Amino acid sequence: MPLPRLALTAGEPAGIGPELLIRLAATPLAAGLVAIADRALLQRAASRCGLAVELVDDDGSTQVARRPGTLRVRHIPLAIDEVPGRPDPRNARHVLDTLAEAADGCMAGRYEAVVTAPLQKSSINDAGIRFSGHTEFFAERAHADVVMMLASPELRVALVTTHLPLAAVPAAVTPAALTRTLRIVHAELQRKFGIAEPRIAVLGLNPHAGEGGHLGHEEIDTLIPVLDALRGEGMHLLGPLPADTAFVPAQRARYDAVLAMYHDQALPVLKSEAFDRTVNLTLGLPFIRTSVDHGTALDLAGTGSADPASLIAAANMALALVRRRNEQAGERNE
Amino acid sequence: MPLPRLALTAGEPAGIGPELLIRLAATPLAAGLVAIADRALLQRAASRCGLAVELVDDDGSTQVARRPGTLRVRHIPLAIDEVPGRPDPRNARHVLDTLAEAADGCMAGRYEAVVTAPLQKSSINDAGIRFSGHTEFFAERAHADVVMMLASPELRVALVTTHLPLAAVPAAVTPAALTRTLRIVHAELQRKFGIAEPRIAVLGLNPHAGEGGHLGHEEIDTLIPVLDALRGEGMHLLGPLPADTAFVPAQRARYDAVLAMYHDQALPVLKSEAFDRTVNLTLGLPFIRTSVDHGTALDLAGTGSADPASLIAAANMALALVRRRNEQAGERNE
Repeated sequence: MPLPRLALTAGEPAGIGPELLIRLAATPLAAGLVAIADRALLQRAASRCGLAVELVDDDGSTQVARRPGTLRVRHIPLAIDEVPGRPDPRNARHVLDTLAEAADGCMAGRYEAVVTAPLQKSSINDAGIRFSGHTEFFAERAHADVVMMLASPELRVALVTTHLPLAAVPAAVTPAALTRTLRIVHAELQRKFGIAEPRIAVLGLNPHAGEGGHLGHEEIDTLIPVLDALRGEGMHLLGPLPADTAFVPAQRARYDAVLAMYHDQALPVLKSEAFDRTVNLTLGLPFIRTSVDHGTALDLAGTGSADPASLIAAANMALALVRRRNEQAGERNE
Repeated sequence: MPLPRLALTAGEPAGIGPELLIRLAATPLAAGLVAIADRALLQRAASRCGLAVELVDDDGSTQVARRPGTLRVRHIPLAIDEVPGRPDPRNARHVLDTLAEAADGCMAGRYEAVVTAPLQKSSINDAGIRFSGHTEFFAERAHADVVMMLASPELRVALVTTHLPLAAVPAAVTPAALTRTLRIVHAELQRKFGIAEPRIAVLGLNPHAGEGGHLGHEEIDTLIPVLDALRGEGMHLLGPLPADTAFVPAQRARYDAVLAMYHDQALPVLKSEAFDRTVNLTLGLPFIRTSVDHGTALDLAGTGSADPASLIAAANMALALVRRRNEQAGERNE
């Protein structure tokens, strides 16, 4: 059985990303790992980690085994050598080139999934490039409509709104946004997670899910009508549920994923219980993409001491999703 | 050593409150328990639970021991017999009379703390009485400015805003509200919890605590100036912190309590990890008041099957706070 080929992007060269890729390569993960990065950057990251990692130019072939400590490289050169902790906008284009190769490579079948290390949004903006994040970059590259999901082994959370000021949230929770998001989450729970009849718990916007209109009207005016319409199409939807009790163990047994209305309604629960096992997934793309759920940690970059737990979790989740997809494809071919 | 006298209110007669009081009385809790309720209501609740509880009229004396299965009663008669599951507004006045006796009794020194079972707000409103909850009732009775805190053995969370539609939250987080709340939380962590120099983690209003103004301006315009002013008075305040990472273990070691800006920013974390050990406390009152953190469970009322875990946790927390207060008073008298 050939190993799935996972594309790994290093993200910000001056952040902890390159070191995390080296630490991941040192594990016995049963995947064909291809770093899309500058070869010399990876070599310097390996020295900083005190690890001997054998870097091999990627020839596009599949492998049946990988020795820990080996890493294939699809070399994309830096514009200027990195200074750990100090992002340089002259490398912004390099970072975007690695993302483009990962996305295009996945769509062309050169890689089976992409796992991304953190990048520095502000450094790309400082280069004069309009850029709002990995998720939006991949969505645009693939002409896809996407949803952000964060998942741990115990809990999957998708978001209707993501990085918005709190005051802008109520107006952004429109019938169109809710419908669009629920359709993507539902389809992807089937397609990527292999759940034939996904059960999705939808949180209310207001505390106590509005308490029958006493604590806000959005549930009555927007959420309930949308949920009813989608139930009419056969979706299994719970709610709108009060957010404060939606995550207790008895409730969790009732759903496969939670749809939260906004960032701080659900991510504190997820990160509180599974900080280094939380993975960011982009739903709706024509390929599998997972990511660490932390930043570039500029203060740690260069020390070789950053913890690769989240990147390892992201790679494992990508691998599990690839295997499930391949099994399903195998079943269809029988 | 005389046992602390805890006043227990049964809340809604048609809810699970009376049964919870009976189940609490059946435990070996080392406290003088005084139910402020209708004696016959408690007797019927005991039958429904299948428990023989000895009800004794309270004579106001202290006890040095209490046998499990005994309960003192300060009898306040129902207007009409309860029908479990069907609140009757004719008993609304009775419910308020029990709360008034509890508050007045605590202030007069007849009880050392009050522990409340859940009531049915709508039934009191249906009786034509303006009433928005236990917390507000006690605040008004004691002419006090109060703050709601929810606490488990692992985490204490106070709220700037409580039961407000989400759209109304940003405008309600004013400098005055923040200052008032922080002063009360700080004073009560010292007074009631015996923490000499409380460390309070203040969450941002916006995701990522506004990310330097990119995701909302309330942190820059309101939170940071208020925090700085209060730090100038000697308060130890962290933040504003991003809510999603504020509850990870490494952060928890840095504070004694969290101040959240709104209900669904923090209560999902607390209830997710400690649902039946979460206690509602009212800070700012001249007496100790704890409460269950659940509703009247009208569908369970009358079956004798409601779980008393939250009431037991509330009684234990009240008892711990009374003991700490008495120790401090003892130290001052030495």
